Amino acid sequence: MTGHPNVGVVEDVRDVVARMALSAAFEPGNEVVGQLVAELGAAGAAEFLASREHTARGQAALARRWREENWLAAADVELELAHRRGIEVIVPGLVTWPTQLDDLQERAPLALRVQGALPVRQALARSVAVVGARAATRYGVWVAEELCTQLAVEGWCVVSGGAMGIDAASHRGSLAGSGPTIAISAAGVDIPVPSSNDSLFARLYESGAVISEVPIGQHPNRRRFLVRNRVIAALTPVTVVVEAALRSGALSTAREADAMGRSLCAFPGPTTSAMSAGCHELIARGGAALVTSAEDVIEVALGSRERIGGNTGAQRFVSVDLQEQQVLDSCANRSASPQQISRSCGISIDAATATLYLLERKGLVRQTARGWRSIDRAP
Amino acid sequence: MTGHPNVGVVEDVRDVVARMALSAAFEPGNEVVGQLVAELGAAGAAEFLASREHTARGQAALARRWREENWLAAADVELELAHRRGIEVIVPGLVTWPTQLDDLQERAPLALRVQGALPVRQALARSVAVVGARAATRYGVWVAEELCTQLAVEGWCVVSGGAMGIDAASHRGSLAGSGPTIAISAAGVDIPVPSSNDSLFARLYESGAVISEVPIGQHPNRRRFLVRNRVIAALTPVTVVVEAALRSGALSTAREADAMGRSLCAFPGPTTSAMSAGCHELIARGGAALVTSAEDVIEVALGSRERIGGNTGAQRFVSVDLQEQQVLDSCANRSASPQQISRSCGISIDAATATLYLLERKGLVRQTARGWRSIDRAP
Repeated sequence: MTGHPNVGVVEDVRDVVARMALSAAFEPGNEVVGQLVAELGAAGAAEFLASREHTARGQAALARRWREENWLAAADVELELAHRRGIEVIVPGLVTWPTQLDDLQERAPLALRVQGALPVRQALARSVAVVGARAATRYGVWVAEELCTQLAVEGWCVVSGGAMGIDAASHRGSLAGSGPTIAISAAGVDIPVPSSNDSLFARLYESGAVISEVPIGQHPNRRRFLVRNRVIAALTPVTVVVEAALRSGALSTAREADAMGRSLCAFPGPTTSAMSAGCHELIARGGAALVTSAEDVIEVALGSRERIGGNTGAQRFVSVDLQEQQVLDSCANRSASPQQISRSCGISIDAATATLYLLERKGLVRQTARGWRSIDRAP
Repeated sequence: MTGHPNVGVVEDVRDVVARMALSAAFEPGNEVVGQLVAELGAAGAAEFLASREHTARGQAALARRWREENWLAAADVELELAHRRGIEVIVPGLVTWPTQLDDLQERAPLALRVQGALPVRQALARSVAVVGARAATRYGVWVAEELCTQLAVEGWCVVSGGAMGIDAASHRGSLAGSGPTIAISAAGVDIPVPSSNDSLFARLYESGAVISEVPIGQHPNRRRFLVRNRVIAALTPVTVVVEAALRSGALSTAREADAMGRSLCAFPGPTTSAMSAGCHELIARGGAALVTSAEDVIEVALGSRERIGGNTGAQRFVSVDLQEQQVLDSCANRSASPQQISRSCGISIDAATATLYLLERKGLVRQTARGWRSIDRAP
């Protein structure tokens, strides 16, 4: 077992670097790359692309691109940079990886860069995506802010795209309610897009999180905005569209959510507003539930989370560090005192006790008559 | 066969007078009265109430009320009044009776008073009910007017309640589109309610119709407003709610429509408007389709009319007078020339030809290679 300060505990750090390299070399959501990684692993895929063996359709072009630069060396540099800037890199297999992304199959992100104070997997356990038009109306902005403040008060995390209009209003509303909120960016996590959202991103770094599948420092392009939407849709059990014109990008997020069996909600608005036409279409013919309040949205979210099943259940969305994992292991299948735990983990009793209370807050352990015991979770 | 100048051709004018008398003596929708009429006929029910035989629960009070006045004599007076004022009285069995009211069973109106130029049964063949709050917003008024003008342009009749707010806007919109429109009043047809709708009622008499189940000259009361809603719901294949607060009377019309298997539509509005909250509730949990245009409403109406079946099909909603009926009979099951029809009906060839063209416009006859022939209708 080998560790890296900012990638957590993984079997093979080569996998992390290869995933970062592949996600730097190829645009997000490239299915051929996704298939290669699924078959060979990330390091294996990188080796395969460097070799001369690739003959299958589409692979030759990928290999040419791969050989243009030393992507693996660049990934090492990015990982160093991430470390210096406190940007977390998470990949499948880590306890911090949001497993609901696996529903994207070969379109799943290869690696995520996360900047911000929020433990994202834990926050995603009670989360909804709130999306909508950049050219929002005052009505839409008001609705998004109200909704997200209320969601925050009820302890729900708001996931959005960090863009102008409904996205920004959603993040702002959540922050106003002191809630957890996550922006899924089409640019590198360190590049606020649009730049007018500078101060919003500063607040997200401080108390929320910005997540991206493209390398640090990268700028977005039209395609990245679009493929980013699948990540928003996959991360949460329900996507809420607040305002959308008939050809809005928010509708692509809605379609992705629907295709993955996530629930879909939309806010109505005046029929005289083109910015509500997309929402009305979703309700009338797109299978979206009409919602008018945070209460409505939460009801749908709870129903959907149950329906999607234990695989994305609350307990699995908890981020734990190495020491927490050791403490958890030491009280799995048996009750243990802080003294016993301190001995088996080689840490002080105070450290063991502090960690136990932390784990209790995360819902991972409970106190019994005979000591502390871990709460069973799905594997 | 006996005729009355303003009740059309009926088997028994006693039935008409008895129905008018019963509907004057008892409040609309009285189910005990409705059951008596169903079992004994209207004249039989009147005789039964005048006798001392009534012992079943609820009948004694009815009988007392019945013996308070000479309702049959009063009905004769009302029938005379109707004749003088050009108010039509229609009852079940007449070709002018809208048979979709039979779905109300024992709650069906006993008789309808109709004032206005519009042939109502024909108009109802392509009709939608548009209802909503009296305390409508400017948004709601705009939506109702636009919707109903467009419905008028597409040849659909708008049925509403003649009240302030959405009702008035709906009638006005229809009239603006030169469309047929019918107000179902909770008062006598000659009493505009509210009186501020005077000029609207004048236009309805002129080119639309006002229908009521209570006698000429009667004023409305709270209960009459409520029971009137079942008639609006029953008359049309689809009820559209434009604006409604959560406890709006328009929602009772919606519930009646739904209970009778009619289709339900609602317009969305801003979630910030209390006047749209009832509509949103209907869409989210009341089975209403979200609609944003006349096109949407017509689509639902066509689907619903088909579903309700031939019993309310277009051909049955046509009003014909005595001469038209004779002409129809003379070309039923065989093609006939205007000359043949003129002979068998005892009218001039010109009159026969004019009547045939009128019937053709109503979709009741067609020209064949061998002359005119009536189009088959359900009995």
